Amino acid sequence: MREVAVIGVGMTKFGELWGKSMRDIFVEAALKSIQNAGVDRIDSMYVGSMSSGLFVGQEHLGAVMADYLGMNPIPATRVESACASGGVAFRSAYFEVASGNSDIVLAGGVEKMTDGADVTDALATAADQEYEVYQGVTFPGLYAMIANAHMHQYKTKREQIAAVAVKNHKNGANNPNAQFRGEITLDQVLNSTLVADPLRLLDCSPVSDGGAAVILCSMDIAKKFKGTPIRIKATAQASDTIALHSRKSLTSLAAVSVAAAKAYKSAGITPKDINFAEVHDCFTIAEIVVSEDLGFFEKGKGGPAVEKGFTSLGGKIPINTSGGLKSKGHPVGATGIAQIIEVYEQLTGQAGKRQVKNAKIGLAQNMGGSGASCVINILEAL
Amino acid sequence: MREVAVIGVGMTKFGELWGKSMRDIFVEAALKSIQNAGVDRIDSMYVGSMSSGLFVGQEHLGAVMADYLGMNPIPATRVESACASGGVAFRSAYFEVASGNSDIVLAGGVEKMTDGADVTDALATAADQEYEVYQGVTFPGLYAMIANAHMHQYKTKREQIAAVAVKNHKNGANNPNAQFRGEITLDQVLNSTLVADPLRLLDCSPVSDGGAAVILCSMDIAKKFKGTPIRIKATAQASDTIALHSRKSLTSLAAVSVAAAKAYKSAGITPKDINFAEVHDCFTIAEIVVSEDLGFFEKGKGGPAVEKGFTSLGGKIPINTSGGLKSKGHPVGATGIAQIIEVYEQLTGQAGKRQVKNAKIGLAQNMGGSGASCVINILEAL
Repeated sequence: MREVAVIGVGMTKFGELWGKSMRDIFVEAALKSIQNAGVDRIDSMYVGSMSSGLFVGQEHLGAVMADYLGMNPIPATRVESACASGGVAFRSAYFEVASGNSDIVLAGGVEKMTDGADVTDALATAADQEYEVYQGVTFPGLYAMIANAHMHQYKTKREQIAAVAVKNHKNGANNPNAQFRGEITLDQVLNSTLVADPLRLLDCSPVSDGGAAVILCSMDIAKKFKGTPIRIKATAQASDTIALHSRKSLTSLAAVSVAAAKAYKSAGITPKDINFAEVHDCFTIAEIVVSEDLGFFEKGKGGPAVEKGFTSLGGKIPINTSGGLKSKGHPVGATGIAQIIEVYEQLTGQAGKRQVKNAKIGLAQNMGGSGASCVINILEAL
Repeated sequence: MREVAVIGVGMTKFGELWGKSMRDIFVEAALKSIQNAGVDRIDSMYVGSMSSGLFVGQEHLGAVMADYLGMNPIPATRVESACASGGVAFRSAYFEVASGNSDIVLAGGVEKMTDGADVTDALATAADQEYEVYQGVTFPGLYAMIANAHMHQYKTKREQIAAVAVKNHKNGANNPNAQFRGEITLDQVLNSTLVADPLRLLDCSPVSDGGAAVILCSMDIAKKFKGTPIRIKATAQASDTIALHSRKSLTSLAAVSVAAAKAYKSAGITPKDINFAEVHDCFTIAEIVVSEDLGFFEKGKGGPAVEKGFTSLGGKIPINTSGGLKSKGHPVGATGIAQIIEVYEQLTGQAGKRQVKNAKIGLAQNMGGSGASCVINILEAL
């Protein structure tokens, strides 16, 4: 396999982008990434999107976006893995470059969620429609079950879960692309509207519009372009049962631990070598469970770790310096790519007030549904 | 790039499979392909599906199918390129094996279209929703415009277009998996219900349920398994404007000619070296236009070629020996994989009454929308 680098990134602001269509959003992000990389061509492109059919009535998204980007006749493919669609788009682009078929490939992600569709209904198609959704379960309910189980099994405190939101909003306040840039307090999280006990409104990532794109390039030629090359050290993906009730455990996500083990093995490193991580905090509890399943903390120690500041900027292993899904926003198909962008900006020293000191190796963990799919990408500064 | 082979195939019967869910259908096809190849593991899988969200309210299809196939925790990714989703799934699987990341990968496609969704509405999301569909155009209308332009520019006769349906039903009568196994006459096509002038009911492929899967394997180890290895000689993909009105020509599909040129170059062959082809006859006129853009006939000669029997079984270049989308059925996500299956069965001499004599090199051409995306795969007997 050829070595592959990321050489440029671009994203829109995440939020309620009512003045921009899905096409506008994707093209804005893609053009920024092309300009950032300084490439004069793209050989192929991948678009991650979870449910453009249900959100805006448009499938065939690869072709639509290649057209609006002015890139016809290059190959353009849409990939979907629910909220992990962006991560999977990145991985697909990686394979095309690693195989030697193409040298420069764009991996993008986009979602337009605020245009009037029934968002909860559309998002629920990432769960088991036949055995979960028809019975009335939606995602806040699924993650609330995980939270309750974790609190029961490991004595994780409600305040520790809420502390994830406080930390991520603090980080997001320094991210110009974040949907919510206001800091929040523990009391505000604990007293926000109840959504699915114990999760409250400020435990949940928002409904967002947004696009993100990165340029992948064969390492052989990466230094020819303006953009700083960052090595893709490992990519790994795993699946789990679609329904939460089919799992052996509610407090551990097997797709995360399996993908992590593969990624670490492929990179020849251990969790201790990771300097910082972007993880999939669709709900606050998810960040805690994932931080354990990635091996950053023992099972059950994820809650105390947040409380002690281990995952804060300046802590042992800063998590979600971008603000995470919680504060930066969660346009589902774009999220996995936006995570890669934060890792890239950290590794190239461009993260401003969010900068992790001596950042050499960063990890991005993107997840679909209640953890039925997970993609992990590890990037390393040259 | 490593050489990659197809070593096994499997599909369901195409048709109105009211007794089977989307999951049942995919799993049936996938298990058949695994058994046919004789593999004892799969490293990863891809699922092509156009619009499972709109058809049956289920996204996250990679994870759903890996789960129901009993394959957790392998990576499972859904890819979408409208009616070319199957072809793109095959190509994605190809890259993963060619890159060296995985040795044995399943590429499948599935669609469940007869479960009550508004099929015309869902299919229209493959066209330009904002500039075509909102104005009232659906796919029969788009292909009718292509047919009218071709008849005007090249004097293509209505009877020549209808002859595609007659030929394909004749082939499909010998395909046990075909949705329609009855032969039809030219008069029946010409007198069937008018859909969008000049296209009539028997010019249109049907609404279908169905699944198809193939097993790709690194050529190095392909001979270890029970299934006969067939070389993937080339894969190419191209895009075009999503809207028909943006194209320079209505009578030529640029994504087809661009992908074909790439595929021939990559394979080191010319159209004359192709012994037979499966092409995307979503409407009869599409087969004529595509047979020209693939270089089998000069522009404008595709109509007369059908009439003269050049594309019939036993002719110069048999096209759609499987019955094509017209007679075999068109569960959109499965179609591209089913085309590969026909090519595989021909190249391994298993096509029975449909067998092309001395079949050494076969081509599969899969297309999305009104030609905004196209995937071409060329396979060769060892």
